Parts: sequence; C-alpha cells; structure tokens
Amino acid sequence: MANRARVLIDCNDQKGLVYRVSKVFYEHDLNIISNREFVDKEDQHFFMRSVVAGDFDAKSLENTLNKELGGRADVKVITPAKKNIILMVTKESHALGDLLIRYIDGELEANIVAVIGNRDNLKSLVERFGIPFITISADGISREEHEDLVMQELAKYSFDYIVLAKYMRILTPKFVATYEGKIINIHHSFLPAFIGANPYKQAYNRGVKIIGATAHFVTNDLDEGPIIAQDVISVNHRFDWKDMQRAGRDVEKIVLSRALKLVLEDRVFVHNNKTVIF
Amino acid sequence: MANRARVLIDCNDQKGLVYRVSKVFYEHDLNIISNREFVDKEDQHFFMRSVVAGDFDAKSLENTLNKELGGRADVKVITPAKKNIILMVTKESHALGDLLIRYIDGELEANIVAVIGNRDNLKSLVERFGIPFITISADGISREEHEDLVMQELAKYSFDYIVLAKYMRILTPKFVATYEGKIINIHHSFLPAFIGANPYKQAYNRGVKIIGATAHFVTNDLDEGPIIAQDVISVNHRFDWKDMQRAGRDVEKIVLSRALKLVLEDRVFVHNNKTVIF
Amino acid sequence: MANRARVLIDCNDQKGLVYRVSKVFYEHDLNIISNREFVDKEDQHFFMRSVVAGDFDAKSLENTLNKELGGRADVKVITPAKKNIILMVTKESHALGDLLIRYIDGELEANIVAVIGNRDNLKSLVERFGIPFITISADGISREEHEDLVMQELAKYSFDYIVLAKYMRILTPKFVATYEGKIINIHHSFLPAFIGANPYKQAYNRGVKIIGATAHFVTNDLDEGPIIAQDVISVNHRFDWKDMQRAGRDVEKIVLSRALKLVLEDRVFVHNNKTVIF
Amino acid sequence: MANRARVLIDCNDQKGLVYRVSKVFYEHDLNIISNREFVDKEDQHFFMRSVVAGDFDAKSLENTLNKELGGRADVKVITPAKKNIILMVTKESHALGDLLIRYIDGELEANIVAVIGNRDNLKSLVERFGIPFITISADGISREEHEDLVMQELAKYSFDYIVLAKYMRILTPKFVATYEGKIINIHHSFLPAFIGANPYKQAYNRGVKIIGATAHFVTNDLDEGPIIAQDVISVNHRFDWKDMQRAGRDVEKIVLSRALKLVLEDRVFVHNNKTVIF
Repeated sequence: MANRARVLIDCNDQKGLVYRVSKVFYEHDLNIISNREFVDKEDQHFFMRSVVAGDFDAKSLENTLNKELGGRADVKVITPAKKNIILMVTKESHALGDLLIRYIDGELEANIVAVIGNRDNLKSLVERFGIPFITISADGISREEHEDLVMQELAKYSFDYIVLAKYMRILTPKFVATYEGKIINIHHSFLPAFIGANPYKQAYNRGVKIIGATAHFVTNDLDEGPIIAQDVISVNHRFDWKDMQRAGRDVEKIVLSRALKLVLEDRVFVHNNKTVIF
Repeated sequence: MANRARVLIDCNDQKGLVYRVSKVFYEHDLNIISNREFVDKEDQHFFMRSVVAGDFDAKSLENTLNKELGGRADVKVITPAKKNIILMVTKESHALGDLLIRYIDGELEANIVAVIGNRDNLKSLVERFGIPFITISADGISREEHEDLVMQELAKYSFDYIVLAKYMRILTPKFVATYEGKIINIHHSFLPAFIGANPYKQAYNRGVKIIGATAHFVTNDLDEGPIIAQDVISVNHRFDWKDMQRAGRDVEKIVLSRALKLVLEDRVFVHNNKTVIF
Repeated sequence: MANRARVLIDCNDQKGLVYRVSKVFYEHDLNIISNREFVDKEDQHFFMRSVVAGDFDAKSLENTLNKELGGRADVKVITPAKKNIILMVTKESHALGDLLIRYIDGELEANIVAVIGNRDNLKSLVERFGIPFITISADGISREEHEDLVMQELAKYSFDYIVLAKYMRILTPKFVATYEGKIINIHHSFLPAFIGANPYKQAYNRGVKIIGATAHFVTNDLDEGPIIAQDVISVNHRFDWKDMQRAGRDVEKIVLSRALKLVLEDRVFVHNNKTVIF
Repeated sequence: MANRARVLIDCNDQKGLVYRVSKVFYEHDLNIISNREFVDKEDQHFFMRSVVAGDFDAKSLENTLNKELGGRADVKVITPAKKNIILMVTKESHALGDLLIRYIDGELEANIVAVIGNRDNLKSLVERFGIPFITISADGISREEHEDLVMQELAKYSFDYIVLAKYMRILTPKFVATYEGKIINIHHSFLPAFIGANPYKQAYNRGVKIIGATAHFVTNDLDEGPIIAQDVISVNHRFDWKDMQRAGRDVEKIVLSRALKLVLEDRVFVHNNKTVIF
C-alpha cells in the first residue's frame, strides 16, 4: 500500500478526461496534492500529472485508471523512489562536479551508479565520492568499437537515465536507439543556434550578445532532440571565445541539473519532439 | 447561451473538489480548454481556473457549481469581455504610453474610459488617442480634498480597475477602501526593497547591481499590497540614479502591462496578501 | 567653440595610443568625462570612445588627433546633437509605438522625420504625433520598383539612420548598399536561431524554452549583420506560436529602442561584422 | 622583471590623470592589454585598472606612478598570482562545493588553504579534496569566545580573503574590524530586501515573484556592506519557502563564485560603501 504516487497520463484529448481521472481518485479516497493538465491544441493531445496521497496499491490504481480511460491512454502510477543514473563525461569537470555535490548533499533524487569517461582525468574526482569511474578510451579504435565497449559496460548496470555531462563524442544511431528516451545531454549553446562543434567559437564569430545552454533528450538527429531546459547569460565584445566558454559553464551546469531534476521528478512528457513540463 | 467562459473557484481544500467541478463540466457537455489548480499548503486553500467551451448559460453554470460545492466556495463564471479601466497618471509618459499603444492595437482586453492626471502635461498625448483626460490639480488643497475631487470624477464612470500608471501621489485609506481590490500600481523598485520615495536614489546609494519594478494591488499599507508581477535589469557603477531611472522605465512599463494583462484575463487570485496566478 | 564632444577613434593597435590621445586632450585642457577603450585581440584593432568637455573647436581637435595618430586612425569628434531618423514599418504597432512615445517624451536623441509604410494601417497612429507618414504600397509592382519608390522618397530627407521597426519586406542588395551602415533592423528571434520567415513558428515547432529578439545593422546577408543588442524571455509548452509572438513583441520593442539609443549616442563601432559597444 | 601586471589607481579626479598614467606606461615601453577608467561624479573620484605587459620591475613602476601622480593617489601594481583564501561554512554544501570543484579544476585563481566550520558535517567533503577542515564548535560558549577560537585558527595561516560560503553566524565588530575589507559573504536574498534571518521565509510571506542572492564585503552593519554581485530567479505561488531555498541555492553559489572571481582578479574597488568593478 503506497502513501503517495505520481500519476502520469497522456492520450488523445476527449471530453470528460479530467472528470474520469478525478473520479477514480475520489473513489479511491485519495488526496490530490497537485494536479496539472495540458492539451496540445495542434494535435489534441492530453497530458496530466497528479500527485496523490492516500492508502492505495499503485498497480491496482494504474489498472483502474486504464480501464476508466478505455485502454486508450498511457497511464503510469509511479511511487517516488531514487532513480539510478549513469554519467558519461570527457574532460570538463563543471557539470559533473555540480551533480556530484548535489548527490553527496542528498539533493539529487537519484543514485549515481557509475561514471564512464573516454579519458581518465576526471577519475580521481569521481572516486573521491565513492563512485566507480570506468575509463573507456576511444584511442585507436573506431566509433563503433568504442561504443560497443561502452554498451558492454552499461549492460552491467541497472539504470533509468544516462546523463551526458559534457561527453564530447557523437553517438551513433545504434547507441541512441538502444537507450531511446533515456539519454539526457547538455549542449553548450542556446539551441537551435550553433548546432555542432565548438558553439562558443561560433557564437564569438557571430558577435552575439547573449550565450546559452540547452539540456535535451538525445535523438538520432544531432542536437535536435526534445528540449527540456535552456538558460542564457549576457556577453559583450570583451569576451573572446574562451571567456564565453568559461562564462557558459555556469549556465551549462545549472541547466543540466535543472533538467535532470525535472526528469527525475517525472515532470517531463515528450511528444512530437517537444516536451510538456509540469 | 455562452460559448466560452472562465470559471474561477476558490475555497477551503477538501477531497473531491476537482472531481465535483469536472463532473459539472462533464454533465454540461463542456470542453475544458485549459484547467489549472493549486492548493495553498499553508492554510489548505484551493484555487482553480478553468476555461470551458460549449453551449451553456453562464449564470446557471455558476449556480450548479455553487450547489455542487455546497455553497462554501467562491465561484465565478466569467464570459470574456473587455473590461473598463481608468488610468491615473502624474507626469511620466512611459507606462501610460505603453498602455495607449496596446490599446490602439487592440492588444489590451480593456477599454480605457478615461485618464485622470494631477498635472496636465500628458493631456495632449492622451487626447491624441481619443480618450478623455481629466486634470485634477492638487495644488493648494489638502490630500483629502484632492481625493474627493478624484472620487467625484471616478463616480461618473463604470469601471473594473483603476491603473496607477506612475501616479506619484499617496492614496488615503479611504480611497483605497472605496476601490478595494480594484487598484493596480506599478512601483519603481523590486519590492520589498526600497519602499517609499525615490527608490532609484535609494538603489543608487545602496550600490545595487540589479534594479526592478513591481506591479501590485494597492492596499492600505503603502507598497505592501499583493504582488502581481516583478522584473529586473542589471545596472553597474556607471549608472547614476537618473540612469537607473531611465533604465528602470522599460521594466516598469513592461511589468505593469504584463500584470494588467493577467488581471484582465482573470488569471489572478488574491489570498492572504499574496497572489495565485494561472 | 564646443563644450562637450564624443571622440571616437579606431585604428590598428600600437603602443602609446592612449598616451597620444590623452596627451592631446591634456594639451587642449579638456576634462575627460568618460573614457573607454578596447583592443580586439584577434586582429589587434584598437577602439576608443571618450567624452570630453572644455573650450575647443571640434574640427581642430579632430585634426590634431589625426596628426598625432599619424593619419592612420579613423577619428571622429562629434558634438552631441539630435540625429535624424526615418522609420519603416509594415503593420505591427508595438516597435513603432514604443519609439513614438519615447520621441514625444524627449527621451529619444533623435528627430523622427518621417515614417514610411508599405501599408497604411499605421498612418493614423503616426499622424497623431505630427509626423508625416508615407504609404508606398508594394502591390502589383516588383520588389525593385517598390524600392525605387522608397528610395525616391528617402531622397527627399536628410537623415542619419533608417530604423526598420518591424518592416516585413526583404531589402535588395542595392538598397542595402545605398544606405550602408545606416539601417537598423529588429529581428524577431534570438539570432542566429531562426533566420528567415516566421521565427516564432519555427521556435514553436522546435519546442524552445526561451525566445528572443535581435537588433542589428542590415547587411546584404539576410539577418547576418552586426548584432547591436539582444534579449530573451522564457516560454513554455503552453505557448502556441501566436502566444510566443505576443510575448516576443515586448522584447522586440525594448531591444530595438535600446539598440537605437546606443547608436544615437555614438557608442557603437562596427568591425569585422561585429560590434564594439561602449 | 615582470611580464604582466594589473595596475590599480584611485584618487581624487583631476585633469590629465589618464595622460600621466599612460605616459608612464609609454615611457616604460609597456603594452596596455586592457584599460578601464571611471569617475564617480558624486565626489569626483577617479578609478583606473590597467593590465600592462612588458619588461618592468613592479615595485619601480609603482614608485614611478606614485611620483607622477604627486603621491596623492592609491597605486597598486599587482603581479598576478594565486591568492590564498580561507572558507568558513556551517552546514550547507552548495556554495562550498561549487568553490571546491572550481578549485580542483584550476579555474579558481586562488589556493583554498583551509575551511573552518562551526559544525563538522562538511568535514568529509572538504577532506576529499585534500584541504584541511577545522571544526570550531560554538556549542556552550559565547559568541566572543567562539570568535576568539576562530581568530586563533586564522592566525595560523597567511591569507588574502575569508569567504563566508554560507557561514550562518553573525560576526562581531571586532572580528570584522580585524579582517577589514577581506571578508566576502553570500547573502541569500536580493539585498536590501530581506535583511536578517531566513530571507526565504520572508520572501515567501511577502509573495514575491523573484528571489535573489547578493555577494558583498562584510562590514559592521549586518548585510549592509558593499555589494559585489547579485542575481535573481523567478518563482511563483507554487513555491513554498523550502522550494525557494532550494531554487535560491543555485543563484547563491553562482553569485558567490562570480564575486570571488572578480575580487581575485583585482577588478573590484570599494568606495563609499559601493563597488566599482572593471
């Protein structure tokens, strides 16, 4: 018997959805702690996230909701629990470090089960936190061979999300497909500006007055996945591209942590390559 | 028979509120266009704003909702229509001008029925827009006498809100009580910093790095009313207080217009001297 | 004899530039009210903007500075005076209106000598402010024919800048070349994201969480000119593209006015398709 | 012989200051890498920060500048070097952790020589980074006794700045006077709003829509010292005060790190309880 659950529902919109769902809550004698709905007008799709409290069995609540909604909805009743995440990194410490500090602090609703790096310079930092760091070098092997090694390593763990905390290698479609909807990336630009390599150099060359960062789910199209969070900071002519990079790091780490928090709290729906966030 | 209405409900929280309300919507065969709820955990107060569409009589829908909620809720069913507003100004044109341009553009969900100024320097600007401007000078008379004249003028109009668009005089408790919950002010600081006179000079003297503006409902306590909207901009040591004032004007006008839009769209609940905004 | 001037200098960097310039100021017994310098490290280019006060002849100061700098610098001594600007518009009133209100208020360091529209729906608004509005319809004629008419009209005026206040037509290279460095545009996106038509629809489709606006000088490459100012606001999944457009208008008008202010105060250097702004 | 130095000058304004300083640079055959000046109009005070490069002796350059300026200026020629800092903390890890990660990364232009806590719960985190953590409990002793112990500990180190990274105890005038101009604090509100205890609870009770953080030098007046940096984030009615606190942490840590960077790079002048920052 659970005490609290997050109920996520999405389906084609129709009259009476809120009524049907709230009726089920009412009949189960549940308190609605919070409740948010949204209808995507473009294709009449309905989204709902409720947090409910009471004495109930999560599985049976899910079944009842499914039945009430005629089996046409995607219903999830999630009992809050720490999720397992794996971080992938290359050489920069800021995004990784921000997550480690939150983790140690208990602020992160997740267990960091391992960190995988294609270099080993962050190994010492990670191990200080009692987290295994696995170096899988890409030197002298093909992208596919490298990814196979990474996937073999990943297969050893049970995890909910892979967080690319400044992992600077491009993933193959095979890798992305294997962990579909489970990979979160931080891109160091305000997407869709400056897709691809070295966005700060691009930003510097273009002479922009604001730079940003974008956290998104990874799909096959590079830097084209559903955006979860973005933020920006002001720059000016005195910033060369390295200054932009330095300043951008603060935005990157905050945006990634913020996006991860939203995902871990089951607040993010993905639909039509966009996100609905409650 | 209406086609669309905004339904506003607030009451003490209890189990089944969303269920009861959505049941009424369902039984009236209404589409829920949007739906937002919130429970203030501090005193267990429930707020809900729905936009519904269908064939219905607004008054009868309100009655049914009232009955369903046991008469203990504050229920309003509002058919969207332009509200009437009166602006009060002193001498600065930026907030006034911003509203006038939106008004002419049809962007404002309101009719500006009159502008009252305690000086006449904005008369020419206002009259260009075909709006009556009434000058009520405060010279040589007491605050009470001046306000009596203003209230006599206000009595000639039917209006929903008074918008203080940089009206630089302090209102008496009598005035505020007369138009309780109907007066919106823009204060030229990030409240509660710099309450009172010349906030920009105060900000300059304190050496702050950010200045702001606050739109709020007016209550008897000067600058202490429920906050509707706030925004800020960065400043630095090169700004003297007049530069801060100039820069602040852009924030003031945008914040006031944004707050007014929220109020006109019936998105703002006031509770415990705070706002819940959907 | 002037009392105050803005001195703008840019040239290849070399040792002693600040020394030479400040020596001239010192020998002319001038007060330096403000002084800002910058060296672009990429190509060792030097920029300086000083505001000086004293009894001096602007032309002779310019000559002395030129001589002192060996004739290799671009030197301008500008006695502050209102510049003349011409606005070009299509149908939206927000950017135009913001400039009109500032103009009437005396806040704009410029005279608006005329407004040219390719439609006439803003004529009435502009004429309320005593400014000539010239409608030059593009209906039934080629882009080149239309621009010829516009250029014939422009030829009647003496002006320093053309401000495209939501002028929604693309300019030909001929037009741009004719008024090189004199055309300021507001683009309704955070460039370089969403170049081209209907950026808000593009932003909506991409599911971004932040939208923005960019004021820039116009060059032949569409939306590729030197950026003067940018700003952004947050959006979310509840915004359809029309909501984004509405919200974006506030950013557009503020960014355009801010950029224009910088240009009118002679604070903007253009170099390598980027701006240095003091 | 140095290669690069930061030259800081402040004095009463007078004609020819830039000329005199740049003449010295020129005669020493120095390159000016960057140069910024400011005159506080209120009391005609001049500030200048130059970064110069060349072959020179720092002490002799300082002497020459002092002589050239008639001994009336405060002149510092600083050869960039890592400064020593001591952190003081209580129980929250976010600001401390942010500094530790930057430190390990080499991003901080400082050595963290020690961390002093009035509790020991952050000891394990700090020691992972090879930095001594000294617990000095305040339990059962007076504020003065506790501070004496802290000052005895501080006396063991050579340091340039004390950084209060969420040190939650009030300092006595004696302590502040001992380390005058050397203590940097992060206050968890947008000062001067919400001075004193639990600003987030105050912010929640006031119903603000934006919260912030302020990094400042500590003076005897609690939360009244010269402000170095501030930043804000948006909140809404769904945030209880604990949510505000959580959200505020990201602002606190970024603002503190940003302020510390400015101080470590010798970019901050303090004058009249305000800062001039280049």
